[in-house]
Amino acid sequence: MSPHIEFWFDLSSNYSHLSAQRIDAEAARRGVRVSWLPFLLGPLFAAQGWNTSPFVLQQAKGAYVWRDMERRAARHGLAFRRPSEFPRPATLPMRVAAAHLDAPWMPSFCRALMLENFVHDRGVDGPEPSQAVLRALGIDPAPVLAHAESPDGRAVLRRLTGEAQARGVFGAPSFFVGTEMYWGDDRLDDALDDAARPAAAT
Amino acid sequence: MSPHIEFWFDLSSNYSHLSAQRIDAEAARRGVRVSWLPFLLGPLFAAQGWNTSPFVLQQAKGAYVWRDMERRAARHGLAFRRPSEFPRPATLPMRVAAAHLDAPWMPSFCRALMLENFVHDRGVDGPEPSQAVLRALGIDPAPVLAHAESPDGRAVLRRLTGEAQARGVFGAPSFFVGTEMYWGDDRLDDALDDAARPAAAT
Repeated sequence: MSPHIEFWFDLSSNYSHLSAQRIDAEAARRGVRVSWLPFLLGPLFAAQGWNTSPFVLQQAKGAYVWRDMERRAARHGLAFRRPSEFPRPATLPMRVAAAHLDAPWMPSFCRALMLENFVHDRGVDGPEPSQAVLRALGIDPAPVLAHAESPDGRAVLRRLTGEAQARGVFGAPSFFVGTEMYWGDDRLDDALDDAARPAAAT
Repeated sequence: MSPHIEFWFDLSSNYSHLSAQRIDAEAARRGVRVSWLPFLLGPLFAAQGWNTSPFVLQQAKGAYVWRDMERRAARHGLAFRRPSEFPRPATLPMRVAAAHLDAPWMPSFCRALMLENFVHDRGVDGPEPSQAVLRALGIDPAPVLAHAESPDGRAVLRRLTGEAQARGVFGAPSFFVGTEMYWGDDRLDDALDDAARPAAAT
């Protein structure tokens, strides 16, 4: 088996932004293949009885997170600005990503929308932001959005969200190397090192 | 001002254990002075409406945390075993530590009790564990415990817990470098690097 990591993310998740912008380069450096897997944090939070992000519900943690984000982004040389709205809805672009898991443009599409949200402080839901990004990537938006909004397209995001929950995911980003789960952008390097490690003989 | 870091911890906190066992050596390597500052997580959790650790309240996160602890301990070459009771009460040794903030043996006392809890899976509350550790450090336990349990001694832990909360602490370990807060054992190295950095001219 070639080295492989699963990257589970939500476009509305600020720490997912930090991982999304660097995972492909860091993985390539180690010869690790990345599967980008979008899922919705909302239903997982709702299962805890939360109606929004814990960064909103817990005031002290929320205040800390934005300072931590500035420091972590600077450490990785990534752009970041605290969004004026958080968490931003991203249902349509999440459906686009989920319904096109194998499209070569999907990671670029997600990175571009996270830059909109977490650098340019612009909304990402509704068709316009997705259309603009797809056009910039040279993709015709019409069939992409039509498939994303079709019953089959929508079902993929629901299925992935259920799979994340069933596998013990409770936050984003989360990474899997085989059955080993890692949570948080600050575990990305550990997870990649784990994926790149030669498997023990069995 | 010489480089300095504040290390806020709770003896019952598993991630505090990881920091406690390595902070003095890591700080010394960078010429950073460490202040060990015990505080009780319980009242901070209670203020969120929680009656115990979020690692108990959130099942998926709780399951993850013990695997993460094993990996992080291995990464740092530290011993760790998942305790059969969590979180373990530690009120008396916390009072001992708080009432003797400037005692040269205080960090060693805390490290030894965390090894009891997080490596040897033994209780740490009540007088016996503290007495045994103090004796092993060559300290007469009787006056130490008497002061810890006196009204003045108890007041120190209450004051520190209130100060932590007032300064925005919401978990342990937390580190302060001036007014800059860092949360979690996985931010210890960032915090120490920050403390060791030459101050900008003003």
